[in-house]
Amino acid sequence: MTKNQVTPWEVKGNVDYEKLIEEFGIKPMEKLPEVFMKDHFFRRGIIFAQRDFGKIVEAIKKKKKIVMMTGLMPTGKFHLGHVIVAKQMIFYQKLGAKIYIAVADLEAYNARQINLKELRKNAIEQYLMNYAALGLDLKKCDIYFQSARSRDAKKSNAYYTLASNFSRYSTFNEFKAVYGEITPGKMNASLLQAADMFHAQLPEFEGKCEVFIPVGVDQDPHIRLARGMSQKMKDYEFSQIASTYHFFLPGLKNGKMSSSDQMSYIALTDSPKEVETKIKKYAFSGGRDTLEEHKKHGGNPDIDVSFQYLKFLFEPDDKKLDEIEKKYRNGEMTTGELKKITIDKINAFLKEHQKKRELAKKQIEKFLSKP
Amino acid sequence: MTKNQVTPWEVKGNVDYEKLIEEFGIKPMEKLPEVFMKDHFFRRGIIFAQRDFGKIVEAIKKKKKIVMMTGLMPTGKFHLGHVIVAKQMIFYQKLGAKIYIAVADLEAYNARQINLKELRKNAIEQYLMNYAALGLDLKKCDIYFQSARSRDAKKSNAYYTLASNFSRYSTFNEFKAVYGEITPGKMNASLLQAADMFHAQLPEFEGKCEVFIPVGVDQDPHIRLARGMSQKMKDYEFSQIASTYHFFLPGLKNGKMSSSDQMSYIALTDSPKEVETKIKKYAFSGGRDTLEEHKKHGGNPDIDVSFQYLKFLFEPDDKKLDEIEKKYRNGEMTTGELKKITIDKINAFLKEHQKKRELAKKQIEKFLSKP
Repeated sequence: MTKNQVTPWEVKGNVDYEKLIEEFGIKPMEKLPEVFMKDHFFRRGIIFAQRDFGKIVEAIKKKKKIVMMTGLMPTGKFHLGHVIVAKQMIFYQKLGAKIYIAVADLEAYNARQINLKELRKNAIEQYLMNYAALGLDLKKCDIYFQSARSRDAKKSNAYYTLASNFSRYSTFNEFKAVYGEITPGKMNASLLQAADMFHAQLPEFEGKCEVFIPVGVDQDPHIRLARGMSQKMKDYEFSQIASTYHFFLPGLKNGKMSSSDQMSYIALTDSPKEVETKIKKYAFSGGRDTLEEHKKHGGNPDIDVSFQYLKFLFEPDDKKLDEIEKKYRNGEMTTGELKKITIDKINAFLKEHQKKRELAKKQIEKFLSKP
Repeated sequence: MTKNQVTPWEVKGNVDYEKLIEEFGIKPMEKLPEVFMKDHFFRRGIIFAQRDFGKIVEAIKKKKKIVMMTGLMPTGKFHLGHVIVAKQMIFYQKLGAKIYIAVADLEAYNARQINLKELRKNAIEQYLMNYAALGLDLKKCDIYFQSARSRDAKKSNAYYTLASNFSRYSTFNEFKAVYGEITPGKMNASLLQAADMFHAQLPEFEGKCEVFIPVGVDQDPHIRLARGMSQKMKDYEFSQIASTYHFFLPGLKNGKMSSSDQMSYIALTDSPKEVETKIKKYAFSGGRDTLEEHKKHGGNPDIDVSFQYLKFLFEPDDKKLDEIEKKYRNGEMTTGELKKITIDKINAFLKEHQKKRELAKKQIEKFLSKP
């Protein structure tokens, strides 16, 4: 299977990826060193575009200090969609990157009617525990809550000061371009988010260094906004942030996988029965209406959610994936058979994962900066 | 001289004090205990209005914990106008209040093209040194820079989190009502300012207690905004902030005393010669055009800047002030004579003050939370 054989933007009709690339200067991935090609996200074009990522590749080659920055919104359940970023954290951690993880609890507090304690609990039980179980070494990460950047006051003061200072270098029109309807809460969240992206480079943290942020392409406006503000900020010495863009893992019904719609996602805490029901009942199929037609004309794996789950997460072997794709496309494999493979793969993964999750439970609290 | 004999709002035509009182629920001062009446600001009605100040008076009577909160904008020179708030800090400190002083360096950074280091230097050399020289015991105050709330990370995190959380409880229209043209920088400054007003009551600081803020009446919109936001904030336990309102010390030319207009103020670092020149040349006079007319019809002390300086700051003895007023009003005392008295009084004060300021210089740095 070659890199661009499947173009998942057809799968997700509401994002015009090509337009994004043309208008906003996002560029296709350039040729990457071998180590990247061992990762199927790169190999299969799931991570498909970038901004300034060349300097990150250079820094990795030269073993320079790099920071991968990411954030999480501590609401809802951790689902398969979240695994896409988690896997990248683990990949880059192994390459020597320091991983910064911002728990956006202040942003969540402003946007939703939840208090900071609940948000904290959810961040730990849903997100951090699953990261650890997936293989992220939390001890080597810098994980923080926006409401409590650090146990070191110098670091906290520097972080919040940076967020405040970004406000001098922004206009309401810039915020409106990103958020549409803008409120004080959203504006404030956006300033904190810019600080999340840039503060690793402050002298109180890592000092000037290369920072990159892997995101879904819908997150690019936030990155553009922060890049723009940072360019006007002459009294800070920042290297511009780099970024990569991946496709979304489609939701079961082939829309967005959303924490607020239970029937759109598979959570990492789902039972085997739940997984089976969800895939059988809800997973959008690229198969034909009748078995006869399917055998005759074949199915369409490009829009088949089960197939996409195998491609994104559960079939790392390209040959096996190719075979499934071929058989499904030419009608040899039925939707039921494809779904069966996917259900088994997901359940085998979840069985192992849920064991690891229990083990991670006990170790986790101490790695966090207490509020 | 009775309390309302002089109505300085005639002196400063651009503020309609009565309208402010009628529209925004500010109330005239109520009868105060004897200890307040020993202070000429209260006795002479220079502090003329309040909001919820009754509970502060009660707390003082019952020797409960109270916090006086104030802020300073660390730009420009410290001048006579600033002495009005400084004197109140000293007054309330002696009554047992804890004094919180916010150096609004982040606000200044957002509003003006100055960097944080310069702002810090100016805050210390102009403001804090003069406070100390005037008699404020800095050791007993909680003085902080917005850019570095505390050396204790728990305190810093709680303060900045509060500022961020206020954004959930505000709308752009509320900000516009206060600021007119609103920018991200101003909005951000306003959130920090609300945190300045309320954070003393957080468990990380004093816990729930009575806090009051003495301000010039033009500052009331900021207080209204912060009060309004705090009322919607159900997950914090705050006692509503109280406030008092004082008249401005008029500038030399009878407008506003402004740091950005050198010929409007007398700085506390001015030389005797500068003071003499400024009063003689620029101080707006309530005298008549000719000596003859003055002797015949008398001068108007209500609009005479020299007389106002005596009343606000330099003649604490009511009898002596009454005598000067009477003589000036009936023409016995000329403008030249009145100005001579004022120049001598100011220069006597500044001579002593500047000595004390030198002494304060060495002691000051250590009381500050380092950035």
